[in-house]
Amino acid sequence: MASLKINCARLNHTLHSTCSQWGAHPSWPETGMCRLALSEEDKMARDWLVQECKALGCDVKVDQMGNIFAIRAGTATDRKPIGMGSHLDTQPAGGRYDGILGVQAALEVLRTLHENDIKTYCPLALIDWTNEEGARFPGAMMSSGVWSTKSSLSLQDCHNVRDEEHRKLKDALEDIAYLGETLCDYRENGLECHFELHIEQGPILDKEKKSIGVVTAVQGMKWFAIRVMGIEGHSGTTPMANRSDALVTASRLISSVRDTALNTRLGVATVGVIKSDTSSQATIPAGINFIIDVRCSTDKMVEDLSSKIFKAFDKIIEAECNETSYKITKTWGLPESIFHPNCIGSVRAAALEEVSDDEILDMKSHAGHDSAWTSRVVPTSMIFVPSKDGISHNPNEYTSPEHWSLGAQVLLNAVLKYDERAKTREY
Amino acid sequence: MASLKINCARLNHTLHSTCSQWGAHPSWPETGMCRLALSEEDKMARDWLVQECKALGCDVKVDQMGNIFAIRAGTATDRKPIGMGSHLDTQPAGGRYDGILGVQAALEVLRTLHENDIKTYCPLALIDWTNEEGARFPGAMMSSGVWSTKSSLSLQDCHNVRDEEHRKLKDALEDIAYLGETLCDYRENGLECHFELHIEQGPILDKEKKSIGVVTAVQGMKWFAIRVMGIEGHSGTTPMANRSDALVTASRLISSVRDTALNTRLGVATVGVIKSDTSSQATIPAGINFIIDVRCSTDKMVEDLSSKIFKAFDKIIEAECNETSYKITKTWGLPESIFHPNCIGSVRAAALEEVSDDEILDMKSHAGHDSAWTSRVVPTSMIFVPSKDGISHNPNEYTSPEHWSLGAQVLLNAVLKYDERAKTREY
Repeated sequence: MASLKINCARLNHTLHSTCSQWGAHPSWPETGMCRLALSEEDKMARDWLVQECKALGCDVKVDQMGNIFAIRAGTATDRKPIGMGSHLDTQPAGGRYDGILGVQAALEVLRTLHENDIKTYCPLALIDWTNEEGARFPGAMMSSGVWSTKSSLSLQDCHNVRDEEHRKLKDALEDIAYLGETLCDYRENGLECHFELHIEQGPILDKEKKSIGVVTAVQGMKWFAIRVMGIEGHSGTTPMANRSDALVTASRLISSVRDTALNTRLGVATVGVIKSDTSSQATIPAGINFIIDVRCSTDKMVEDLSSKIFKAFDKIIEAECNETSYKITKTWGLPESIFHPNCIGSVRAAALEEVSDDEILDMKSHAGHDSAWTSRVVPTSMIFVPSKDGISHNPNEYTSPEHWSLGAQVLLNAVLKYDERAKTREY
Repeated sequence: MASLKINCARLNHTLHSTCSQWGAHPSWPETGMCRLALSEEDKMARDWLVQECKALGCDVKVDQMGNIFAIRAGTATDRKPIGMGSHLDTQPAGGRYDGILGVQAALEVLRTLHENDIKTYCPLALIDWTNEEGARFPGAMMSSGVWSTKSSLSLQDCHNVRDEEHRKLKDALEDIAYLGETLCDYRENGLECHFELHIEQGPILDKEKKSIGVVTAVQGMKWFAIRVMGIEGHSGTTPMANRSDALVTASRLISSVRDTALNTRLGVATVGVIKSDTSSQATIPAGINFIIDVRCSTDKMVEDLSSKIFKAFDKIIEAECNETSYKITKTWGLPESIFHPNCIGSVRAAALEEVSDDEILDMKSHAGHDSAWTSRVVPTSMIFVPSKDGISHNPNEYTSPEHWSLGAQVLLNAVLKYDERAKTREY
């Protein structure tokens, strides 16, 4: 079975033809993608995926969060499926590998098994997790979170999340006919384990000239929604000394987020989103919202860095000595995730069948993934392939065909390795 | 004629009933207004105004920018009208005195003359200038600027300005049926002079317990649209040291706008609008736009303060030592305006008929007004009344009935004083 090979040319064609059709942007580099969750482009890509999986004889289930489970039967009737999941949605200015590669590679695994007429012991499940990016509907990895039942957001909460046009996620699911009836709960619609092929999105593999990352954990992260309040006034008539300018205060706070993260070396902290209540250039802004994204190797470090950031905020507010203030209006977090040795072992063994040990690196993920949620309820690991210059969430995101096809092959090998052990009841 | 009195109760009723109907906001204080230029609310207020003026026998002309000229005939056939102008539009979160008071007071002047059957020598023109705020369609005092032919923006430019929904101003004028045929050019549709009653929008009259400001000039101002460019990246995987975060750089620049204005004491500088290309909290922002509003007593000081701000910017960019950069993408300016002694004299004499000298203050305007543009082509002055605590561009904007009715009375007196001199050919 180790000699079973995926069809690189087919995967290449599938990956690029679907991206070109559903989400490519005419003024971006060829690799750029905008396929927001539950958009028309997402619907087209989903419809195509469902059709392809059905053509392979899969049973397709859609759950209450729109997660697609395409299940290929195994010989065992008492085992849950081995999952191969990732996501088809992208950032508004993203690339065609982040997420999409993992789903397309899983399809290629199913196609390879199908054309070679191989029946695994456990069933297999290709999974497209809804709204992994959290770009249209705030809250990344939203639907794997609901499925795991370990997220602080319930199904109800997530159904009520609104996009910028105030459309509810539940309505958006109905719009594209992906509000399914399968319960979004791992206890009702479970998996044996979860594997995810993904681009690294960071520079480590590329810099160290490694081909495969065996992912052992995902770093912890926390998001804080901040509101800065000041006093509105006329930009021409309000003396500089009498101002409580919310944007000036927010600017000082945002600068300090970077400075604190850089100086403490505890992790990374980013303000990606800023919005002002004011849309007039002749008005002193009175309300600014922004979101801080903090990520560190451990949960303890996330807490330390966050508390240092807010200490810096309090100092700034004191020094400003006006009527501006801030409050934390919402937090969201993904605790550190430790992956399962059985899955990690399968990935490592799978990689060693293709490349030598010095091309393989054990590593932590610095980005969040659906696998972080699945790891809380089923054995999980991930396979990373290199991102050129570590660029991601950017139209210039790039992974070479050699690397992504190697990744897809390692995914196939890992699934078969795990399945073999499951069959002999070693797992 | 000095004993002719406006009807305060009627003006009070007109001012508040029209504001309550067209632009009041249920969750704001009673004085709050949102009546954006060429919105449905603006249309309703305009339609009402036109009807009221026609009922007084006025000839109503609408020009190519939607400016309304309601002209009441005088006895002279060879003189242009004495203008009484201001604006009916407001900021998105503004008040019911800024602009609206000036137009409603002008209507009260016409009503008072009408019911007392007084015919002036010169014709009189009530004027509603379109889009003074520049809040919906960027570019404040836009239409008086076109009329004066001295603005850098042509009629064509202004017709093509788009709001946030990408609606062109010309189309918006058509939407509400205010795209008129009268040429928007003072040489074709001229005025004898221009008077404007307005709230001060600053704290000076209120603090110094004065009742009337005789406005002698408008300070110079300049707006700069800035774009900060960085490199997009993933918030989790891009090390702090390798980032070119456009929002962090923009934050440092915005802080320095305030610090430079405060420290040099040359004038005021404000960033009222900020927008990020990025709407994802997991992405390092690569593009930020913001607008700087600089205002000083003289044009020279505007130049000095602006150049000091940009020197501070260059230092910051150098210190950041990454790939972020900025460019000035557009500028717009209103040079210092000096009002005309004949109009200033009429306002001062008009005020002295109502209050003693120690309640009157000669002052510069720190805010821009349509009168700044009219002053470039016809004799102009303004009447200021106190703003409580100097608050404006804010739903809490407030001017007491004593003050605004005094202002309307002074407007009537000033127009009659000017008209008397015009009749005796002294002006």
